[in-house]
Amino acid sequence: MKIASTITAPALIAAFTPALADVVVNRAITETEVMAAQDGWCQALVDISSTNAKSGGEAATALAEKVIDSAYGYQMGAVLFKPTLTVNPQTFRTTRAGALSYFVGGDSNYPNDTGFALKDWTKCEHETTATFIAGSSASTMGKVHFTDKDGNVTTVDKTWTFVKDDAGQLRIVVHHSSLEFTGE
Amino acid sequence: MKIASTITAPALIAAFTPALADVVVNRAITETEVMAAQDGWCQALVDISSTNAKSGGEAATALAEKVIDSAYGYQMGAVLFKPTLTVNPQTFRTTRAGALSYFVGGDSNYPNDTGFALKDWTKCEHETTATFIAGSSASTMGKVHFTDKDGNVTTVDKTWTFVKDDAGQLRIVVHHSSLEFTGE
Amino acid sequence: MKIASTITAPALIAAFTPALADVVVNRAITETEVMAAQDGWCQALVDISSTNAKSGGEAATALAEKVIDSAYGYQMGAVLFKPTLTVNPQTFRTTRAGALSYFVGGDSNYPNDTGFALKDWTKCEHETTATFIAGSSASTMGKVHFTDKDGNVTTVDKTWTFVKDDAGQLRIVVHHSSLEFTGE
Amino acid sequence: MKIASTITAPALIAAFTPALADVVVNRAITETEVMAAQDGWCQALVDISSTNAKSGGEAATALAEKVIDSAYGYQMGAVLFKPTLTVNPQTFRTTRAGALSYFVGGDSNYPNDTGFALKDWTKCEHETTATFIAGSSASTMGKVHFTDKDGNVTTVDKTWTFVKDDAGQLRIVVHHSSLEFTGE
Repeated sequence: MKIASTITAPALIAAFTPALADVVVNRAITETEVMAAQDGWCQALVDISSTNAKSGGEAATALAEKVIDSAYGYQMGAVLFKPTLTVNPQTFRTTRAGALSYFVGGDSNYPNDTGFALKDWTKCEHETTATFIAGSSASTMGKVHFTDKDGNVTTVDKTWTFVKDDAGQLRIVVHHSSLEFTGE
Repeated sequence: MKIASTITAPALIAAFTPALADVVVNRAITETEVMAAQDGWCQALVDISSTNAKSGGEAATALAEKVIDSAYGYQMGAVLFKPTLTVNPQTFRTTRAGALSYFVGGDSNYPNDTGFALKDWTKCEHETTATFIAGSSASTMGKVHFTDKDGNVTTVDKTWTFVKDDAGQLRIVVHHSSLEFTGE
Repeated sequence: MKIASTITAPALIAAFTPALADVVVNRAITETEVMAAQDGWCQALVDISSTNAKSGGEAATALAEKVIDSAYGYQMGAVLFKPTLTVNPQTFRTTRAGALSYFVGGDSNYPNDTGFALKDWTKCEHETTATFIAGSSASTMGKVHFTDKDGNVTTVDKTWTFVKDDAGQLRIVVHHSSLEFTGE
Repeated sequence: MKIASTITAPALIAAFTPALADVVVNRAITETEVMAAQDGWCQALVDISSTNAKSGGEAATALAEKVIDSAYGYQMGAVLFKPTLTVNPQTFRTTRAGALSYFVGGDSNYPNDTGFALKDWTKCEHETTATFIAGSSASTMGKVHFTDKDGNVTTVDKTWTFVKDDAGQLRIVVHHSSLEFTGE
């Protein structure tokens, strides 16, 4: 048996450096990206509130649409979204319209929605208890604390799952938010 | 340029059937597997309850340990588990011990736990609103209805994320459960 | 402890059908999709050849660009592409330009390329030996048989790895092709 | 609408540190892990050769079995393995037996195998051109240079795809190796 591609060792040793790859495409989600996505979600909520206060509901709605289109994965077909304050039989908001109505209200198809993002939030902080990075998806679980203009804080238990889109941006595909159980 | 591996067309055509692969290893999670995992979770909860009623708390605890070890992913390092009825500062149960205490109580480290699986459940039904299969992980969101021995039904909003282990079994790595918000 | 969301069992039973989810987003790659992607690759190669014969090199190049942009993942940053007939030091074609040159030649940066897709291929058949679906990626390995206008068949050993893009289309991110070893 | 879990802002601010998660489970494959797996593969090949020289074929076979069982994914059902020097109709070695025979020979079911790992290799170096990390799988492509005891070097083009097992170890699920095309 003849092996065609035999070259002498010295030539070989000169020809390469046994280091990392020249090119690396990394589609795995990192903890840093997850934290940045959560920062972005919090900032967007406060921005919608302040836009509403300054420029009115129409501007707030336009911003909310932009946020949903850039931060959620509705264009993939559906998002598993259980907002904090929805009630039966419209608990789950698997469509973009249902998400938008939850954040800014004003949709007669969702008569109970008053617009969670319009509640004059001035601060939003996430406190992640645990992160599970599966590889092409990543989930976090923790508390999110919302402060309104009067200084009142509302805390929710929140789970998010993110995937990375073609442009490398994280998108929320699962979002479960619930008020804390108080034992009463 | 000479291409070494040229053979005549007739021989080639005889040599292969242009069909599916001879061997397929499929590690992707299917909807059927997700539904079976949810069935299994529900059945396990009822089984722990009935074991407790028939054979006592020790037997129920032994079964709960078996269920946790086979259905959850604690051996991977942690599970993102927010049970329905936990309270601060022990809301999240990222360890096996915390999960076990939630289901069967009796752990002085978790003084508020009374054992959710010991509440004489006779029926558990899952009603999945949406499923997102990312590939190597899959999430579901929906309602789970628990019926106790007196016929009372408790409904929760539930999100599960599953991954597949080396043996091909699904394991829960995210579990967020919350009582329905009633608007009050 | 009071559980807020208790309703009576009969109401519950009427309210849901314990079936599959209403909405399923499935990003996992299926065997059917992989086979279709391989069919598409083979057809594209033959199409480039026939376009070249009928309409000339410019039209063939335009088609090759379209094929590369739709079937490969170069827009993600790089593709791991080892074409059948490349030689050192340009064995690997991790850039779009390198792939295009391999298929249609005419790029002075790749002086050894004569255009694999221009070799008057009239038939291309893939014979997959094994498929491994990891979930969000899938790989196949097998033979691909190319028949030219004179009926000569060239067979290569080929490995492809695919991922799914945002639009749900498979894209080649790994492509290793090699002439069969003949033992000589 | 009453939000149950409102607490005052100062208490909240004291209660958490807005930092990274307390617990992170990361199943994504890293570039470092991929490089270590390739180092391990190279070292194992040299070890089998030296074991064969020192202790004979039986010891080399035992070591090869250990290497296959720890570094490949045959226990998942199949591996997409195209070794460098196999010939038709046994080109692909999707079973453990086929892989073992390729590395150490001695299996009458594979009469052409002479044992690639027994060729007195004293050095094995990998030179990765590109890495694609899909998340829960990762692929590399590059050259691997084998030096034998006489100082002759054989170079192959190699593609590997790895997945992570439950224990967190990478396993090869795709392995395509081919002699360099020389243009003749």
